Amino acid sequence: MACNKIITIGRQFGSGGRKIGEALAESLGVKYYDKELISLAAKESGVDPSVFDSVDERAANSLLYSLSMGVYSFAGNMDQMPVNDRLYVLQHKIIRQIADEGGCVIIGRCADYVLRDRQELVRIFVCADMDYRIRRAIEQKGVKESKAEQAVHKTDKSRANYYNFYSGRKWGQTENYDLCINRTNLTDEQAVSVIRGYIDVL
Amino acid sequence: MACNKIITIGRQFGSGGRKIGEALAESLGVKYYDKELISLAAKESGVDPSVFDSVDERAANSLLYSLSMGVYSFAGNMDQMPVNDRLYVLQHKIIRQIADEGGCVIIGRCADYVLRDRQELVRIFVCADMDYRIRRAIEQKGVKESKAEQAVHKTDKSRANYYNFYSGRKWGQTENYDLCINRTNLTDEQAVSVIRGYIDVL
Repeated sequence: MACNKIITIGRQFGSGGRKIGEALAESLGVKYYDKELISLAAKESGVDPSVFDSVDERAANSLLYSLSMGVYSFAGNMDQMPVNDRLYVLQHKIIRQIADEGGCVIIGRCADYVLRDRQELVRIFVCADMDYRIRRAIEQKGVKESKAEQAVHKTDKSRANYYNFYSGRKWGQTENYDLCINRTNLTDEQAVSVIRGYIDVL
Repeated sequence: MACNKIITIGRQFGSGGRKIGEALAESLGVKYYDKELISLAAKESGVDPSVFDSVDERAANSLLYSLSMGVYSFAGNMDQMPVNDRLYVLQHKIIRQIADEGGCVIIGRCADYVLRDRQELVRIFVCADMDYRIRRAIEQKGVKESKAEQAVHKTDKSRANYYNFYSGRKWGQTENYDLCINRTNLTDEQAVSVIRGYIDVL
């Protein structure tokens, strides 16, 4: 039987959570969504994907303010929204549509919060030791050695701001997830095996 | 072959981490230490176990101050130490002796920090949703319903203070552990199975 679990993966920058998510989706035979969420949002809205890409997982810190001022409504015209909020609202809608289609793996973008009412939800968080993440940022993401630690902190901060702002929860806090896995001493395959160990007992 | 892993389990109050630890030790065929660490410390020091029990996993907030003032040394007479610090130092020593004897499961007491240089170390943290923990505190620990939420917060705070004070790390923060497991939707046996899934891939 096909896996019907909706698996969300939060991840520290440089932890390799994306690769683990890809391998997990393949192992379960379900679809995988990461940057795909941007293309889908762009397609739905007609906005250039590169515009959305530049604000992906960044909070504008303006949605609640705008809502409280009654500047726009979700049901109506989104053109006046800051592009960050517009992308969040579109991704929110797309994430719910994707989940309706069955089992999948979704990386980041508050998907665990967006889908909090779904019984099939499995919330994973991938972390790793700082040394591992710095090395990975240099080797896999082409970050300069002298800038790597700063880049790790900066991207984590940006992801945390995004998550905390839109969800009202705290990014990376254990009780917001079903399983938090430190992958420092694990290969992608081993990490997938541990996550499957959780999914398979449910 | 007997399991040689030294497994430490941090746990939120009411999460049932202790029971999971017991079941894990039984499943792996290794020794289990929780309150046993108090009896061992009492035996070693001649202090009444009930005295140690009353300060177990509570920080005195005085060890570093006392050290900086040169009031006492570890090698010498511990009689002048606050009883909290004395218990910490004794438990620290006992935890290292236990780890030298082979595979085991140790609950709380900064054991993950005390044994941070050990290759065989596996650091687990068990959490659960607040509703689960409140219910468990009432049903399993006999806490009054009206006091249960407060008791959960208070004991967590006490454990966090103890851990943060003696380790200089942050209790319950994902990257301080190898695996953080939210046991809200799991039986003890399922939680053991997930943890074994981690241990077995190493």
